[in-house]
Amino acid sequence: MISGGVSIAVLTWKGGSPTWLYQLSKAGKLCVPAMNVNDSVTKQKFDNLYCCRESILDGLKRTTDVMFGGKQVVVCGYGEVGKGCSAALKAMGSIVYVTEIDPICALQACMDGFRLVKLNEVIRQVDIVITCTGNKNVVVREYMDRMKNGCIVCNMGHSNTEIDVASLRTPELTWERVRSQVDHVIWPDGKRIVLLAEGRLLNLSCSTVPTFVLSITATTQALALIELYNAPEGRYKQDVYLLPKKMDEYVASLHLPTFDAHLTELSDEQAKYLGLNKNGPFKPNYYRSASA
Amino acid sequence: MISGGVSIAVLTWKGGSPTWLYQLSKAGKLCVPAMNVNDSVTKQKFDNLYCCRESILDGLKRTTDVMFGGKQVVVCGYGEVGKGCSAALKAMGSIVYVTEIDPICALQACMDGFRLVKLNEVIRQVDIVITCTGNKNVVVREYMDRMKNGCIVCNMGHSNTEIDVASLRTPELTWERVRSQVDHVIWPDGKRIVLLAEGRLLNLSCSTVPTFVLSITATTQALALIELYNAPEGRYKQDVYLLPKKMDEYVASLHLPTFDAHLTELSDEQAKYLGLNKNGPFKPNYYRSASA
Amino acid sequence: MISGGVSIAVLTWKGGSPTWLYQLSKAGKLCVPAMNVNDSVTKQKFDNLYCCRESILDGLKRTTDVMFGGKQVVVCGYGEVGKGCSAALKAMGSIVYVTEIDPICALQACMDGFRLVKLNEVIRQVDIVITCTGNKNVVVREYMDRMKNGCIVCNMGHSNTEIDVASLRTPELTWERVRSQVDHVIWPDGKRIVLLAEGRLLNLSCSTVPTFVLSITATTQALALIELYNAPEGRYKQDVYLLPKKMDEYVASLHLPTFDAHLTELSDEQAKYLGLNKNGPFKPNYYRSASA
Amino acid sequence: MISGGVSIAVLTWKGGSPTWLYQLSKAGKLCVPAMNVNDSVTKQKFDNLYCCRESILDGLKRTTDVMFGGKQVVVCGYGEVGKGCSAALKAMGSIVYVTEIDPICALQACMDGFRLVKLNEVIRQVDIVITCTGNKNVVVREYMDRMKNGCIVCNMGHSNTEIDVASLRTPELTWERVRSQVDHVIWPDGKRIVLLAEGRLLNLSCSTVPTFVLSITATTQALALIELYNAPEGRYKQDVYLLPKKMDEYVASLHLPTFDAHLTELSDEQAKYLGLNKNGPFKPNYYRSASA
Repeated sequence: MISGGVSIAVLTWKGGSPTWLYQLSKAGKLCVPAMNVNDSVTKQKFDNLYCCRESILDGLKRTTDVMFGGKQVVVCGYGEVGKGCSAALKAMGSIVYVTEIDPICALQACMDGFRLVKLNEVIRQVDIVITCTGNKNVVVREYMDRMKNGCIVCNMGHSNTEIDVASLRTPELTWERVRSQVDHVIWPDGKRIVLLAEGRLLNLSCSTVPTFVLSITATTQALALIELYNAPEGRYKQDVYLLPKKMDEYVASLHLPTFDAHLTELSDEQAKYLGLNKNGPFKPNYYRSASA
Repeated sequence: MISGGVSIAVLTWKGGSPTWLYQLSKAGKLCVPAMNVNDSVTKQKFDNLYCCRESILDGLKRTTDVMFGGKQVVVCGYGEVGKGCSAALKAMGSIVYVTEIDPICALQACMDGFRLVKLNEVIRQVDIVITCTGNKNVVVREYMDRMKNGCIVCNMGHSNTEIDVASLRTPELTWERVRSQVDHVIWPDGKRIVLLAEGRLLNLSCSTVPTFVLSITATTQALALIELYNAPEGRYKQDVYLLPKKMDEYVASLHLPTFDAHLTELSDEQAKYLGLNKNGPFKPNYYRSASA
Repeated sequence: MISGGVSIAVLTWKGGSPTWLYQLSKAGKLCVPAMNVNDSVTKQKFDNLYCCRESILDGLKRTTDVMFGGKQVVVCGYGEVGKGCSAALKAMGSIVYVTEIDPICALQACMDGFRLVKLNEVIRQVDIVITCTGNKNVVVREYMDRMKNGCIVCNMGHSNTEIDVASLRTPELTWERVRSQVDHVIWPDGKRIVLLAEGRLLNLSCSTVPTFVLSITATTQALALIELYNAPEGRYKQDVYLLPKKMDEYVASLHLPTFDAHLTELSDEQAKYLGLNKNGPFKPNYYRSASA
Repeated sequence: MISGGVSIAVLTWKGGSPTWLYQLSKAGKLCVPAMNVNDSVTKQKFDNLYCCRESILDGLKRTTDVMFGGKQVVVCGYGEVGKGCSAALKAMGSIVYVTEIDPICALQACMDGFRLVKLNEVIRQVDIVITCTGNKNVVVREYMDRMKNGCIVCNMGHSNTEIDVASLRTPELTWERVRSQVDHVIWPDGKRIVLLAEGRLLNLSCSTVPTFVLSITATTQALALIELYNAPEGRYKQDVYLLPKKMDEYVASLHLPTFDAHLTELSDEQAKYLGLNKNGPFKPNYYRSASA
């Protein structure tokens, strides 16, 4: 029974936010305690933001050799993944548009210097379309019909649902595999779009994941397992829990030496002033990602 | 009684995280419901990150006319305020070092391209010292004794505790007021440090706050008051609450038209797939700042 | 006679490219040798690029307190000044459009991530208009008629010719001085545009110039004077000369200690391999700004 | 005879500044006219700055899968290539140090936010060493002996002279080829450095060159050939010439449509004011790269 709980703690790689786990819990069908590792800060930031910031460039280069400078790109979704993709491409000289459904993320996109548009406003002019929404049918056939020749379409979000690839498997369109993970889909008038990884995750299919990121994610998962296993009877019920703040901090501290980074220690007087233990946790649990 | 709760909802401007409110609550001394407006996403991001990104530059320029390019700067603390200050100065060509006590924020500083140091490692070489910790006695006399001639010292954090200004009021040091909010503190050997706003908040003392940011913060506070006032008996107890996600989203949506920003709407099919109401909230409460 | 040559060497502050000097020379009307200090690399980069990168932000903040994040801005001209302004505003989260007449600078703007537009394409939507062209009548009444309410208009280029301010001095428009250097020009329908410094140079009128930049420019001018004065008879004729590369390098080397910067020295073997003197000049004269 | 001149106009790919051509000319040994295509602005900017900005990331990822965030990197040389490499890695969250011999480029590095160091100051702490100098023996055995375990060493400059690879072919060091273009060189104590492309050009050996850049370079070369071929007798002597400004502008204008970029045209009045032909050239020849 406990071991069942333990196994739930190991989220699948790139699982995204475990909505299903919360749904199970809400429905009273969760029969073991579960730890939502995905939403720990270190996992969110490293596996999503920082890793995607690099792998979007890597994945596009390895598959298409596209030059980023001056390209017009639309990034669908401005969560951690979208933020990483947008920042990286902007830094490389692309002009990036963002789409969002959530007004908070939308406002962040504005303040970060991206025009917030609906997809149909820019679909005719962009050179690259990247989905990072966790949603389904974000890029549908209607949009692909209007893309310009040579437009690159790829998915950095989750699963293979974001681009409606099925809609491209129709008789009037020709598919041409130009290299591994790269298909040209050809319209009757000769227009081609460049579809990467058949709409599956670009970063898993077409780029590598740095060992550093793997280490952070694996450490977080292992600590969650250990916590569930060692916890005294009754600490965790048949519900979904977030990783205790202190463990999240511990994962981070284990990885600081890689950067020759030197942490400052609180003096007794300072710890008292802040009402903190000198060894952490340093943030209240509710604050956990506000600083993230 | 209720009106007491309402008044607590209005956090003081630049109040920082309301630790004291949680301490009151924990001690059972909170006699009304209270809303922690400070940690809503829109407040955090706009009042802290985005606003400070601009006001650090503005405050330094108006007081000292310093050129940012090539300057070495140490930013103490890498929360939202520290992130904003560091990003702005890096963008202007400064070389920025960061100090932190929290390993999570420290790791973020590393990944964002800042060397994480202890203050004593760089204190002799930096041109500007900025405190953003919320802590006390971060910059003490011992450090100021070792600063180089002309070093600028200022506080973007909270209150006037971060720089130990009292330690500078000793007979061997001479104070010279060179203009409003700017003091030269002169050592016996002629060395001067440039102390801004006598250690009080630079952004409040020496720069202005954009009306846009005021609008976001004031809207958030007003909505919190309305919620507390209108809530049915029993929804809120004598405790501290975070602003409901949906209200946070509403504040953001009210400010999108300023940017001519166009929000995407979920289709019925997509809303169902995500298990969301088409009008939000779009994120679970626990997720509230992970996307922030 | 010599002193005439000497006086020509001192270009006026913010003189821009001394086209008139070349025109005089071409017309055979230059009666003394002249040194074009303006186009030395250190002058170009520091007085123009690096200084304007900071003073555009400073000038706008001191006059209008505008928040840069999310604002749409058009920068007219993508020379050194335009590059500095565009980079700074982009870094602060503005969305920047660029106009250019020169295809080389235009292509650079594209590669740097700016949409290259004609002014009439964006004039209705932008929040800020900045001229950096050295040209005249870049922003004419027709454009100002179409600007949106609250649009800020200012000049970072040269003289007061870029914005056609005279066209705003007509009976149907009302001028309201809201503070020093800031006028609201009010249309009959109530629309206001915010005109800074009456179209004169923003960076000279509304911000300060760092002493570091003054030092570089003044040093360059002084060295040019010394060179003209000390030069053996016949080295300089009645023509316009660029500062010898070696002097340009000398000015730079004098300012390196400010940054605690450590220059690498060529070994004998390396100098021989490159065909250079170990003390410079390090670049051929034709190359002078390719590295700039 | 003419065809000899023509053939000299075609610089080898990644030839760097054609010092040898100027040396030939100076020695009176150049028997045909030659066009220095390498130092045209479009070639410099695209082939060097913009292309290297992308290929440094691409080359490192494809060979080593290294994560850039938080890594300490030293870039030797701050010409166009060094500028591109430094900017890209900084944008990806690396901490970048720069070495230079030329004080002008050194000062630019400072103003762009890089610490200017001598190689020996940082060699023990860096994770990646990149040479972009055009010089020889920039990274010698002495430095490699002091690098830390796992340090990546590569060359983006010219030829294979910058890293003293020969010094690594000694009995006490073991070479291990871990994949194509990647060697581990192993010290007796087990320390490994990761040498890429055996010290040859990383961007040519380990990444691809975008067709856009090839197009710009090839167009420039072709136009130079046509100019030499069509020029009336006597326009070009047995000397080295820079591409006429107008041709450089023409190359740029041919590539603008790729970006849907809209060039502004001078009015008659403006052209007259500036003393320019409405069709260019828009800059004096001496200015050619000051705007670059």
